[in-house]
Amino acid sequence: MSSAGATLRTMREQKPLVHQITNYVVMNETANATLALGALPVMAHAGEEVEEMARIASSLVLNIGTLSGHWVEAMLLAGGAATARQIPIVLDPVGAGATEYRTATAHRILGMVDVTVLRGNAGEIATLVGAQAEVRGVESIGAGMEPAALARTAARGLGVIASVTGPVDYVSDGERVLAVSNGHALLATVTGTGCMSSAITGCFLAAKPGEPLEAAAEALAAFGVAAEDAARGAEGPGTFHARLYDALYALDPATLDGRVQIEEL
Amino acid sequence: MSSAGATLRTMREQKPLVHQITNYVVMNETANATLALGALPVMAHAGEEVEEMARIASSLVLNIGTLSGHWVEAMLLAGGAATARQIPIVLDPVGAGATEYRTATAHRILGMVDVTVLRGNAGEIATLVGAQAEVRGVESIGAGMEPAALARTAARGLGVIASVTGPVDYVSDGERVLAVSNGHALLATVTGTGCMSSAITGCFLAAKPGEPLEAAAEALAAFGVAAEDAARGAEGPGTFHARLYDALYALDPATLDGRVQIEEL
Amino acid sequence: MSSAGATLRTMREQKPLVHQITNYVVMNETANATLALGALPVMAHAGEEVEEMARIASSLVLNIGTLSGHWVEAMLLAGGAATARQIPIVLDPVGAGATEYRTATAHRILGMVDVTVLRGNAGEIATLVGAQAEVRGVESIGAGMEPAALARTAARGLGVIASVTGPVDYVSDGERVLAVSNGHALLATVTGTGCMSSAITGCFLAAKPGEPLEAAAEALAAFGVAAEDAARGAEGPGTFHARLYDALYALDPATLDGRVQIEEL
Repeated sequence: MSSAGATLRTMREQKPLVHQITNYVVMNETANATLALGALPVMAHAGEEVEEMARIASSLVLNIGTLSGHWVEAMLLAGGAATARQIPIVLDPVGAGATEYRTATAHRILGMVDVTVLRGNAGEIATLVGAQAEVRGVESIGAGMEPAALARTAARGLGVIASVTGPVDYVSDGERVLAVSNGHALLATVTGTGCMSSAITGCFLAAKPGEPLEAAAEALAAFGVAAEDAARGAEGPGTFHARLYDALYALDPATLDGRVQIEEL
Repeated sequence: MSSAGATLRTMREQKPLVHQITNYVVMNETANATLALGALPVMAHAGEEVEEMARIASSLVLNIGTLSGHWVEAMLLAGGAATARQIPIVLDPVGAGATEYRTATAHRILGMVDVTVLRGNAGEIATLVGAQAEVRGVESIGAGMEPAALARTAARGLGVIASVTGPVDYVSDGERVLAVSNGHALLATVTGTGCMSSAITGCFLAAKPGEPLEAAAEALAAFGVAAEDAARGAEGPGTFHARLYDALYALDPATLDGRVQIEEL
Repeated sequence: MSSAGATLRTMREQKPLVHQITNYVVMNETANATLALGALPVMAHAGEEVEEMARIASSLVLNIGTLSGHWVEAMLLAGGAATARQIPIVLDPVGAGATEYRTATAHRILGMVDVTVLRGNAGEIATLVGAQAEVRGVESIGAGMEPAALARTAARGLGVIASVTGPVDYVSDGERVLAVSNGHALLATVTGTGCMSSAITGCFLAAKPGEPLEAAAEALAAFGVAAEDAARGAEGPGTFHARLYDALYALDPATLDGRVQIEEL
């Protein structure tokens, strides 16, 4: 049975190391979210060390938000080491659909790395399954498929857990679809909250091995609950952002499940 | 007629995509300022995609704060694509005057890209027009010319709108000079607020095509008004910084013009 | 005699330029800490300019948190220029012990650059003196030596001032050992506070030339006092982080010495 509270408790006891190869914009933010939640972040991207780092990590998060040649190679190296060890891997295909380079790189990683969870917005995920999609920069403008169906289709077509985030999030393994209704509108006013949700997915996957569908949904629910808490007393995006780390840190395993809104469709 | 409120209203309706190739220090900050204001930021710097990204953007912001070879090449590629499409381009010559590499790179970009607005501090801009200047790191220590005259001289000499920021900002197209008096002393205590003003200039240019002088002044005025709001209740640089995004988000198109202090000299 | 207040007063009068070649995760944070304290940060890492920048700086901070080939070369170039000018140099060996690349790079810098202060956690410093150590990512899990003895051993063995931070910090020149008890547990919940303490060490070294042992201890004490102030009224890691810059900015040279807890062992 799925219990975000139990997973969070395990995470805080084990403090799993979450290796992140992510973009320049959000590196501080995803590290702080990981740390506030109770896991240990490490950022390393040099070809000389990514395999060694991935070999001591409990999960790997790949994010192409500010990709370039050397970084993509590092992602493939780390992804290879993580695949060999069968630790969970999250791919955040930031901006897939906006440029050909991003779309091709996301496909390349999906082809060469055993991605456990693909976490993106509807436009990015729709792009990767070949559905109609509009992505402006890194923002999803539209997708030609309902997000629940999109999650299921992407999971089947790409052989991953698909985690499609939006006002309501949909997570699917190709059979089951879980809808997560936690969250707050202020999340969309802060850059990198999508990337944070990918990092947090990496944390939950590390703490709940063997149940990636549940872990991915719990991650989004827990992040959403924290956002709800952070919004209380926030005066806008900046104070909300600061309070988001407070709220992640204050998440209480004992009460979390009572607030989680995960529904199986 | 210049109306910062009208430009802001247009920006929030159109949500222009502002492509930013900027420095590592402020990437998160300029993305968040762009988003809080109501435009869409995208950070992309790979040679493989910068032209494609610049082709879907409404304006381009180039910032040399942590420049290196590949990044400069990417700026030139993106700048070329933006020039071809005649979308507005902002150049922030961070640290010009501090090292020969920064000065030469700023000149190189000015020579190869159709820069619309050059936004910098007095020392940086004075360096680029060959006037006496002192720049310590990225801080302007002194310039051998009054800033209003400097803005006019730079605009004429470099063929740009020159936007010289300081306690009072001066924006000139070589003929007219607009003085902007909004702002707050706490801006100087947070790193990257100059870079934010360049990003916000890119947002305003995108929302007010064909009137770059007015758009550049409105951008600084709007940012200054937000700083005035953020300072109220701030306890120092850190809480001011968080509240700055709150204030940008809360800027009200209906009341903005009543607070803007732009004076034509 | 050691007076953190006097050093801080000098720093704010002289505004020394502190050249930092640091990691992507904390660049904004260490720049803001430097600025809030009263010094001037500059981030520059291109081979084309690092020597020139180091030649106008008052101290240099090298941090290998997200190292890669070109960045290491830039650190060696800047370190060489700083060594030639005999300005103080801080090395933060982030993650030494976690991967071979990090350990080897830290040793390489120590071998080629005249490092004044080596600032790290117990696991990192123990790794570099060949003692038993466990480093998970960038977190010290354990060191096979008491931290006071470790600081003395590292100082002697590596020919540096060793600054080993933890719940209590120990700073040694190989003979004397100073223990610094200021600080707050919330520091461990925000990423990059270790890196900030290295940057602040660079600021204090610049303001107190010729007394690196005292300057390094004063830096940690001042940072610790600021953390104590920031914790008051903080609701968690995020608001603590914002308030930390407020507190650095508000540090009062007149009252600082009364709060500093430095004890010679």
